Amino acid sequence: MGVGIDDIQQAAQRLGPYAQVTPVLNSPALDRELGGKFYLKPECLQRTGSFKFRGAYNAISIIAKRDPGRPIVAYSSGNHAQGVAAAAGICGLDAYIVMPDDAPDIKRINTQSHGASIVGYDRDTQDRISIATALARDVGGVIVPPFDHEHIIAGQGTVGLEFIEDLDACGVKLDCLLVPCSGGGLAAGVALACEALSPGTEVYGCEPEGFDDHALSLKAGARVPHDGGKSICDALMVDKPGKITFGINKRLLAGAISIADKEVIRAVAYAAETFKLVVEPSGAIALAAVLSGGIETAGKSVGIVLSGGNIDSKLLCDILKS
Amino acid sequence: MGVGIDDIQQAAQRLGPYAQVTPVLNSPALDRELGGKFYLKPECLQRTGSFKFRGAYNAISIIAKRDPGRPIVAYSSGNHAQGVAAAAGICGLDAYIVMPDDAPDIKRINTQSHGASIVGYDRDTQDRISIATALARDVGGVIVPPFDHEHIIAGQGTVGLEFIEDLDACGVKLDCLLVPCSGGGLAAGVALACEALSPGTEVYGCEPEGFDDHALSLKAGARVPHDGGKSICDALMVDKPGKITFGINKRLLAGAISIADKEVIRAVAYAAETFKLVVEPSGAIALAAVLSGGIETAGKSVGIVLSGGNIDSKLLCDILKS
Repeated sequence: MGVGIDDIQQAAQRLGPYAQVTPVLNSPALDRELGGKFYLKPECLQRTGSFKFRGAYNAISIIAKRDPGRPIVAYSSGNHAQGVAAAAGICGLDAYIVMPDDAPDIKRINTQSHGASIVGYDRDTQDRISIATALARDVGGVIVPPFDHEHIIAGQGTVGLEFIEDLDACGVKLDCLLVPCSGGGLAAGVALACEALSPGTEVYGCEPEGFDDHALSLKAGARVPHDGGKSICDALMVDKPGKITFGINKRLLAGAISIADKEVIRAVAYAAETFKLVVEPSGAIALAAVLSGGIETAGKSVGIVLSGGNIDSKLLCDILKS
Repeated sequence: MGVGIDDIQQAAQRLGPYAQVTPVLNSPALDRELGGKFYLKPECLQRTGSFKFRGAYNAISIIAKRDPGRPIVAYSSGNHAQGVAAAAGICGLDAYIVMPDDAPDIKRINTQSHGASIVGYDRDTQDRISIATALARDVGGVIVPPFDHEHIIAGQGTVGLEFIEDLDACGVKLDCLLVPCSGGGLAAGVALACEALSPGTEVYGCEPEGFDDHALSLKAGARVPHDGGKSICDALMVDKPGKITFGINKRLLAGAISIADKEVIRAVAYAAETFKLVVEPSGAIALAAVLSGGIETAGKSVGIVLSGGNIDSKLLCDILKS
């Protein structure tokens, strides 16, 4: 069926009463430091603390209309979980979330606060999709996947739609736009919005070192898994790009940039100290790409999506003191 | 001469290319917790990390036009200092800032980063106005006071103007609007904007316990000093309301609310964990008033100005761990 700008615009309509329109922030400090012109989209200020509410609400509101009363099942490292839990709550549906046992406490607590039930699993030894599939069968529910679904991609695309429309109103066209990337739903949605409304803007996905499945897949021309390892970016650990998302990203992404944890840590501290924003590691990776010189930005207009802010206070403080 | 809505609108015009239009944020969590409808204006996201840039730039751009090349002198605990330093930098003027020796490091470092010169003094034994007056005489400069000046009040009033206009666009009228209060410039500017554009909105100033000079002065009907003491709110320690600001606030404020440090500390943590915003103690005091029940908010539409985010990381972490 495909996803297009019409789907993104319809998603924006659905989200209107429920999502936060996040601002576009300037940063004179970053402009001065790097010699470009930088624009930030702080999705940490989004409802549930990340962009994931957008896709989840778009998908779940469609389900609730077509199939009222049907339980929602999802698997997520934590941000999609919170988005699904909040969206199901708004739509009056029960939600069951399959979440890794090592997810940050803040993500677990917030998910439960929206009334969702959590089913834990071991990230290293168990397969979350199998668990979710069995669970959906048991409760008669429908699975809302974290990224590889047209309604999810359209919802995440509203980040790009808002970003472009707000900058258009100020007469700004971005040379490039950097987004965190794992399953590729945000990247795909934003790239589709840019294709339609700002075709001169190059969209880059930013991934943790070792979890560079988009970089590897773009190179191979087909979906290949990453090597894995350890990363501080708990929300960017999907093993390979989604089928639908990669179909879009292969065609539309200008590239994928791999970033070391130490650069991500620096970006989290920079965001708190300079932007006054609490950004989680995964959410700060596009900023890290810019601060570390992972992409040349001097003289360019650069958009950066800060995709989420659900970081445990202890980790934030460890980073701020380092 | 007086300050009116025209002056605030002209200030907004001047600020247009330089200030951040800060968003209005919803908080479903706060709505759920307190049973009201809450709207946040995060001025911690403003250029230089606080609303003070607005008044400073408005005043200094007028000076630069009338009297180009004239050095700027200011006295400030830190946020006005940064606003003045940045505004003078934009206008190409030298700036000298009289700042207490115990100001947070982040405020001192940021002030210097804009090219301003800092002159230290002891908050307990020396008078900052005398020092600034002598300095202005020595360098042939003009003093830009932190609050008691029409151009400053008009600049700060743009916080209220933006807040009201953005809420109007969503069909929302505030029942009350809470702002941090010390010299009273922000309160006066916001109250003037409300008088003109949202006359049904009650504006309250929020002050640290012991530094409740507005509460005492409103009761006395004349400017009287507070008793002082200790407070974590380093930006809210002015000894009594300004002459011009109190003339406005006496007429327009619905009241002043005194808040204990422990409530302010809770609000700083709440802002970081729930809103994903870094807010300094002084900037969080209006949120503290709401969270502590210092004002009845159930069933009401409540605006909260989070006025600044310049907090040292060490203090933020001490608060997040407490």
